[in-house]
Amino acid sequence: MADFKIAPSILSADFARLGEEVENVLAAGADYVHFDVMDNHYVPNLTIGPMVCKALRNHGIKAPIDVHLMVKPVDRMIGDFIEAGASIITFHPEASEHIDRSLQMIREGGCKSGLVFNPATPLSYLEYVMDKVDMVLLMSVNPGFGGQKFIPATLDKLKQARKLIDQSGYDIRLEVDGGVTVGNIAEIAAAGADTFVAGSAIFNTNDYQATIDKMRAELAAV
Amino acid sequence: MADFKIAPSILSADFARLGEEVENVLAAGADYVHFDVMDNHYVPNLTIGPMVCKALRNHGIKAPIDVHLMVKPVDRMIGDFIEAGASIITFHPEASEHIDRSLQMIREGGCKSGLVFNPATPLSYLEYVMDKVDMVLLMSVNPGFGGQKFIPATLDKLKQARKLIDQSGYDIRLEVDGGVTVGNIAEIAAAGADTFVAGSAIFNTNDYQATIDKMRAELAAV
Amino acid sequence: MADFKIAPSILSADFARLGEEVENVLAAGADYVHFDVMDNHYVPNLTIGPMVCKALRNHGIKAPIDVHLMVKPVDRMIGDFIEAGASIITFHPEASEHIDRSLQMIREGGCKSGLVFNPATPLSYLEYVMDKVDMVLLMSVNPGFGGQKFIPATLDKLKQARKLIDQSGYDIRLEVDGGVTVGNIAEIAAAGADTFVAGSAIFNTNDYQATIDKMRAELAAV
Amino acid sequence: MADFKIAPSILSADFARLGEEVENVLAAGADYVHFDVMDNHYVPNLTIGPMVCKALRNHGIKAPIDVHLMVKPVDRMIGDFIEAGASIITFHPEASEHIDRSLQMIREGGCKSGLVFNPATPLSYLEYVMDKVDMVLLMSVNPGFGGQKFIPATLDKLKQARKLIDQSGYDIRLEVDGGVTVGNIAEIAAAGADTFVAGSAIFNTNDYQATIDKMRAELAAV
Amino acid sequence: MADFKIAPSILSADFARLGEEVENVLAAGADYVHFDVMDNHYVPNLTIGPMVCKALRNHGIKAPIDVHLMVKPVDRMIGDFIEAGASIITFHPEASEHIDRSLQMIREGGCKSGLVFNPATPLSYLEYVMDKVDMVLLMSVNPGFGGQKFIPATLDKLKQARKLIDQSGYDIRLEVDGGVTVGNIAEIAAAGADTFVAGSAIFNTNDYQATIDKMRAELAAV
Amino acid sequence: MADFKIAPSILSADFARLGEEVENVLAAGADYVHFDVMDNHYVPNLTIGPMVCKALRNHGIKAPIDVHLMVKPVDRMIGDFIEAGASIITFHPEASEHIDRSLQMIREGGCKSGLVFNPATPLSYLEYVMDKVDMVLLMSVNPGFGGQKFIPATLDKLKQARKLIDQSGYDIRLEVDGGVTVGNIAEIAAAGADTFVAGSAIFNTNDYQATIDKMRAELAAV
Repeated sequence: MADFKIAPSILSADFARLGEEVENVLAAGADYVHFDVMDNHYVPNLTIGPMVCKALRNHGIKAPIDVHLMVKPVDRMIGDFIEAGASIITFHPEASEHIDRSLQMIREGGCKSGLVFNPATPLSYLEYVMDKVDMVLLMSVNPGFGGQKFIPATLDKLKQARKLIDQSGYDIRLEVDGGVTVGNIAEIAAAGADTFVAGSAIFNTNDYQATIDKMRAELAAV
Repeated sequence: MADFKIAPSILSADFARLGEEVENVLAAGADYVHFDVMDNHYVPNLTIGPMVCKALRNHGIKAPIDVHLMVKPVDRMIGDFIEAGASIITFHPEASEHIDRSLQMIREGGCKSGLVFNPATPLSYLEYVMDKVDMVLLMSVNPGFGGQKFIPATLDKLKQARKLIDQSGYDIRLEVDGGVTVGNIAEIAAAGADTFVAGSAIFNTNDYQATIDKMRAELAAV
Repeated sequence: MADFKIAPSILSADFARLGEEVENVLAAGADYVHFDVMDNHYVPNLTIGPMVCKALRNHGIKAPIDVHLMVKPVDRMIGDFIEAGASIITFHPEASEHIDRSLQMIREGGCKSGLVFNPATPLSYLEYVMDKVDMVLLMSVNPGFGGQKFIPATLDKLKQARKLIDQSGYDIRLEVDGGVTVGNIAEIAAAGADTFVAGSAIFNTNDYQATIDKMRAELAAV
Repeated sequence: MADFKIAPSILSADFARLGEEVENVLAAGADYVHFDVMDNHYVPNLTIGPMVCKALRNHGIKAPIDVHLMVKPVDRMIGDFIEAGASIITFHPEASEHIDRSLQMIREGGCKSGLVFNPATPLSYLEYVMDKVDMVLLMSVNPGFGGQKFIPATLDKLKQARKLIDQSGYDIRLEVDGGVTVGNIAEIAAAGADTFVAGSAIFNTNDYQATIDKMRAELAAV
Repeated sequence: MADFKIAPSILSADFARLGEEVENVLAAGADYVHFDVMDNHYVPNLTIGPMVCKALRNHGIKAPIDVHLMVKPVDRMIGDFIEAGASIITFHPEASEHIDRSLQMIREGGCKSGLVFNPATPLSYLEYVMDKVDMVLLMSVNPGFGGQKFIPATLDKLKQARKLIDQSGYDIRLEVDGGVTVGNIAEIAAAGADTFVAGSAIFNTNDYQATIDKMRAELAAV
Repeated sequence: MADFKIAPSILSADFARLGEEVENVLAAGADYVHFDVMDNHYVPNLTIGPMVCKALRNHGIKAPIDVHLMVKPVDRMIGDFIEAGASIITFHPEASEHIDRSLQMIREGGCKSGLVFNPATPLSYLEYVMDKVDMVLLMSVNPGFGGQKFIPATLDKLKQARKLIDQSGYDIRLEVDGGVTVGNIAEIAAAGADTFVAGSAIFNTNDYQATIDKMRAELAAV
C-alpha cells in the first residue's frame, strides 16, 4: 500500500480560531496542513499570506505546512514563505517567468518544491525539471473558487502524471486538489494520487476524525 | 472633546486565535477593528482577505470593521469585503482608475467609504469627492512594512486635512496609521486626527486595556 | 451668446446602420460626432475603434469627429485615429505616461487635442499644458457605463475650468459628458460649458431634431 | 461530403451600414457571421465590442454569430458577449489564466466554446479540454493585421488537428482564419478544415453570392 | 553667483569608449556625469544599466554620477545603482507606488535623492517630501527620445520650483534636462536652474572644453 | 567536424572600453559578439540596449552581433536592434504574444532569427516555426544572473534539439549559453551544440586568445 497523505485545506477552517482548528484536524489524523495563498491577481480572490503561516508555527504546529501559491509573480512570496516556516511550496508554471530558478529557490530555502497544474495545463512543463520537484499537484477544479465538483478528466491526467513520476525514478508526491471526498478518494488513489487535499469534505463535518478515518478506510482498500 | 476612536490593527494580533484576540482588544476598550489587506502588488506583502473578515463576523464580532485596502486594482475587493461584513472600506486613490465610482460602490454596499493617503500623496485627490468620503486616512509610515516610526511631517498634513474637512461641513473621520503610540497620540490628536490605528503599540503589550486606557488618558488631555 | 456645440455620442446610436444614424443626427442640427472608444482595460467595456471611424468618413460624413479615448495606453490609438480621420482626440491624463508628448502627437497629426477629467480627477493636470490643449472635457459621470445621472459637483468644477481657460487666453473648448439632457443643459452652460455630449437624450427619442432644437432653445436663454 | 460552413469576417464589411452588409452576405449564402474582437492589448488594434454584436441581433440577424476574442484577459468579454447574443465564443489559450474555467463559462452561458491557435501555438493546449470545446480555430495568419497571406504550414497543422478531433469522438468544428480565398479553399478543406473565415475575399468583391458560390463549388469537389 | 553645475549626458557619448569619453568631458570641466537609464517600459527605449555605471567606477571615474531613472517600477533599480556606485539617484513620481519610501531607500544607500518632473507633471508631488529630496529635475523635453527642442514653458515652471525650494529652506539642487545649449543656458539659469544636463550640445562638438567654457561664460553673466 | 562558433558575451567585458574589448576578443579568434539585453521586467536586471550596439558598429566592428533579447514585450526592441546593426536576434517565446510574427519581423529586417529556451521551457514552441528560425538557443543557466553553473540536464535537451533540427532539414544553429568553459565545451558540443556563448570564461582571463584556442582544441577533438 502506498504512503497516502491527507492534507486538509485550511481555507475551509474557521479563521477566527485557526490554531485550534489545525490542532484538531492534525489530532484527527491529518498529515499535512494545506495552505492556499491567493493574491487577487492570479486568481480572483485574496486569502492568507505568510504572517498567518508564521502564526501557526508560533502556535506550536509542527506538521508539514504545504503551501500552494496561487499568486503571480511567485518569487517574493517564495522567500516570504520560506521565512514563515513553510515545508512544501508549490506554484503554477504559468505564474513564473523562470520556473527552474523558482524551484531552485524553494529547495535552497530548505523546503520541498513542486509545480501545480490547472485542469487544462499540459504536463509538458515537467519535462526538464523532474529532478527539481518533490511534488506534482494536479488541480481537479479551477483554483480560486470554492464549492466545485471534481473534474473527471483528472483521473486520466493522474495516470499520466503517475507514469511520468515512476519513469523518472525520483521520489515525487502526486497530490490532487479539488472536490475530493470520501466517495471518490479511492478512485482518485487508484489513478495514481498519493496525497489528497480536502477542504469542506473535512471541515464542514462535525467529526474530523470520523471523516479522515473513512478516507483512510477507502484508501486501505485501493 | 472630540469623539476619539481607537482602531487596533489586527496585523499585530495572533492570527492563530484571531477571534479571541479581537474579543479581548474590544473588551479592553477598542472602538474599531482595523483590518489591513495587502495583495503583494500594491505593497510587497500579502496578508489577509475577505474570508478572514467573514470569519470574525461569524465568530460574533459586532464592532465596526475598518478595512484598509492596500491592493490594486480595488473594485473586486470592495465587492468581496461588502459581502464579508466590512463596515468601513478605504483605498488608495492611486490604486483605482475610477475613484468616484469606487467610492460610490462602497456606499451603495452599505459601508462607509474613505481614501488613504501615502506619506507623499497630495490631498488634492479629495478636491471633488469630499461629499463621497466618510473617512480620510493619512499614512504616517509607508504601507506594507512593519516596525516603522511615525513620519513627523504627518502632523502638518493632518492640520491641512482637518482644515479641508472642517471647511467642507461634512461628517468625515480623520484617521492616522503608522507609529502611533501612547507617547505621541496626544500630539497627533492635537494636529487634528480623531481616529487612531495602533498595532504593535497595543498587541505587543501584555495588558491591552492598560495601553488603551493610557491612550485615552492622553487624548482626554488634548 | 457663446458658440455652443452639440455632440451626440454615437454609443447610443444604432450600430447596425451607423452611417444613416450619423447623417440623421447631423441633419437634425448636431455639430460634432462624439466617438467613445473603450478598450476593456481603462474602462470595463470595449466599444469601437479606428475602423469604424474610417467607415464614417468613407460613408461621406464631413462633420468634426470628436474622439474620446477611454483606453490605456493611448499613443498607438492616437496614431490610428489620426489616420482614420478623427478631428479632435481627447484622452485621460492618468492613461498616458507622457501627457505632453501625447498632446503634441495629436496636433502634429493635424487634429485638435484635449484632456478628459474623471469626476474625481484634479484639474492640476492642465497646469503646464494649457498651450497644448484645444479642448477640456469634464466627465459628469464615471466613464465606461451607460445610464448614469449627471453628478452635480460637476457644476462647480466647470466654473473652475472655465476660469482657468479664460485666464489662459487660449481658444479652448469646455466640453461636458454624462447625463446631459434638455432639462439641465442650460444650467450646465451657465456653469461654463460650451460643448455638450448627449447620447441617450438624443438617440433614444424619436425626433432627433426636436430634441436638439429644445437644447438650443435652452442654450439661447443662458 | 463534410458539412462545410462559410463565415465571412465582418472586419471587411462596411461598418457604416453593417446590418445591411450582414443581411446581404447571409442572403448570399454565408452560414455564420464571424465577429473579430480586438482590444489593443492582445493585438495591436481595437475593433468592435459587444454593443455592435447586440445591434446586429436587434437588427434582426438570426444567423450564428461566431465571436473570435483577440483580447486579454478574456473573462469579462465572455460574459458581455453572452449577453450580447453571441452563438460561438472562441479565445486564445495564452490569454486566459484559467482556460478550463473560461470554456465552462461560455457553455454555461448557452454558447458554443472554442480555442484559437496562433500560427506558432502548439495544439497541446487541447489535451485536457477536448470535451469542453465545440470549435478549434487555427489562425493561418498572425491576428491583428489585415491583408496577410495564408501561411502554408497551416495545412499540416490542420491535418494534426483533424486527427485529434476525430480521435476524440467529439463533435468539434475545425475552423481556419486568414488568407482563405476561392483559390485555396479546396486545399484547406482537404487538410481537414470544415469552417472557413473569409474577409476581404468576400467583402471586397462586388458580388458576394458569386464568390460564395465559387467557394462552395470548390468545396463540393473536395 | 550661484554654484552652477554642468552635467553632460553620456547618452550622447561614444559607448564604444565610454571611459575615455567621460574622462575627457570631466577634464574639460564638467561637474557631474549624467546617466540616463531607460527600460523600454516607462519610456520607449532601453539604454544602459547598473553594470555600465559600475564599469565607470572601476575605470577610475571619481566625479559624481547623477543617475536619472526612466524606469517603472523603480525600487530594484535603486538598489542596483546604489551598489554600482551612483552618487545621485532621481526617479519619476508616477513610476513609484511609494515615493516617500523610494526616496528614503536612496538616502539610506548613501546617495542623494531626487524627483523628476515630466513637462506636464505638476510640482504638487513635492509637497510632502521637500525634506527628503536633494535634487529636483525638470524635464524640458519629453524623456525617451533624442533631438528635441527645449519646451519654453519650462522657464515658468523653473521659477515656481525655485520658489518652492527657497521657501523650504532645504539645500536642494534644481536641475534641467532637455534642449539645453550655449544659446539658452543663461536664460534657463535666470529662471532658477543651477544644474544643467546637456548631451548633444557637448558631445556633438569637437571641443568639449570650448563648449563647456562658453556655457560657463554665459552662466557667469546671469 | 562541425562548423563551431564561439560567441563571447560582452556582459563580462569592460563596459568602459567596450570597443577595444570587442576588437581584442575578435582578434583572439571569437566568431560572434554575443549581446545580452535585459529590461528589468523579463529578468531582474537592466543591461544595455540598441545604442550600445550601434556604437559598436560605428566603432568599426564588422563581426556578426548576436543579440539575445531578455525583454518582454519584444517587438519594439526587435525594430530598434535591426536599425542598430544586429545580425542575429533571438527572443524567448514566453515573451511574445505573437511568436510567428516576431520571427518574421526579424527576417524582414535582414537579420537571422531565433528562439531562446529557458531551462524549463519545452521545445514544443519550435513545432510550427522550424522554417522561420535560424538559431535555437538553449539556456544552460537561468537568465538574468551571473556566475551560475551549467545545468547538466541541458545535455539531454541539446540532444533533443539537435534531433529536431536535423530532422527538419533546415540550416539552424544550436547555441548554448550559461556556464560554458574550457572544461565542459567538448561534452556540450558532443551533445549537439555548435555555437557557444562564454562570458567570464573568456573575459575573466588575462589572455583571451589562449582561452579561445583551448576551446577550439577541445572542440577539434569532438
